[in-house]
Amino acid sequence: MLRAPPGVDLIDYLTNFAEKENIQTGLINIIGSLKNPVIGYYNVERSMYEEIKLKGFYELAHGSGNISLKENKLFIHLHVVLGDKNGKAHAGHLLRGEVFVAEIIILEITGEKPPVRKQQGNLWLWDIYHIT
Amino acid sequence: MLRAPPGVDLIDYLTNFAEKENIQTGLINIIGSLKNPVIGYYNVERSMYEEIKLKGFYELAHGSGNISLKENKLFIHLHVVLGDKNGKAHAGHLLRGEVFVAEIIILEITGEKPPVRKQQGNLWLWDIYHIT
Amino acid sequence: MLRAPPGVDLIDYLTNFAEKENIQTGLINIIGSLKNPVIGYYNVERSMYEEIKLKGFYELAHGSGNISLKENKLFIHLHVVLGDKNGKAHAGHLLRGEVFVAEIIILEITGEKPPVRKQQGNLWLWDIYHIT
Repeated sequence: MLRAPPGVDLIDYLTNFAEKENIQTGLINIIGSLKNPVIGYYNVERSMYEEIKLKGFYELAHGSGNISLKENKLFIHLHVVLGDKNGKAHAGHLLRGEVFVAEIIILEITGEKPPVRKQQGNLWLWDIYHIT
Repeated sequence: MLRAPPGVDLIDYLTNFAEKENIQTGLINIIGSLKNPVIGYYNVERSMYEEIKLKGFYELAHGSGNISLKENKLFIHLHVVLGDKNGKAHAGHLLRGEVFVAEIIILEITGEKPPVRKQQGNLWLWDIYHIT
Repeated sequence: MLRAPPGVDLIDYLTNFAEKENIQTGLINIIGSLKNPVIGYYNVERSMYEEIKLKGFYELAHGSGNISLKENKLFIHLHVVLGDKNGKAHAGHLLRGEVFVAEIIILEITGEKPPVRKQQGNLWLWDIYHIT
């Protein structure tokens, strides 16, 4: 359990935290509030992420992600659902976003080989189907 | 932790996996991307699910669900939040949807009697209020 | 794992349950359906929550929250994503909402000092950045 300080980028903060604590595999769960979040939508036809830039403060209704390895480094993959001032929800892959509040719970998964991301086209996907 | 292969139906895949691994009780957490997802909204007045058919690819911002028993078989109950190409979010009970990417973390819950779903009207609800 | 009975307020129910079971620290995960939910959006300029009152039944696509301490009492902080009859999603901080169905999984976190909420302006934030 941790709280990210205001003003940091959420993805950077999580990456630094996981590196410092050497958490190679885990489940991430966050609620809070983000400023100017940028979310990605993967355009399958173009094989690329399109950026959706949201302005202002959004309730971080849920951040759900995982920690795994990509090119020998820890990689945070985080999807978010954001609520705007009218309660309308926006959702996608979090590219960046400034923390206003972030209450984070990380469940470290131990005793397993961490999944490794390999490039497949323009996506980096886990190399395994089952780790059981 | 597992990744579902592209092209399979997500609910079918999870059901088969849980059966194969004999996971009777658990918490499911997924991020990824789905093609042509169909979500349900339970219409209380009509006591039935209405189907909402979405077309194309959607970011699976979050899939949250559980595994329990229904008529002596494993049953996956999964709700999803989906992001479209404009970042707008759609949400409901997942009826079906083709996997493009699905990074799945299942937390098996052991040491407890699994909850059993019983029919109440047109819903199948857990037979217990507390398992502690 | 538990199911909240129909008709109760979800936040009240969770608070009572955590008090009864003396769960001071935990992660909450819920799927279900809520009637007349009221969600909050924190207006940073005004330093206050604005209430968004939704009418009717909504799929509770995801409820994500945590249990911590505030003024020596257990405090439930829960964010929700709700799906309406058209599948459109609404999201924010849950202020209140009547349970129609609520399948709840609480992961108790033990062996750590529970985070304590302290007032900072009009928000009650955890007093620590890392509990590791």
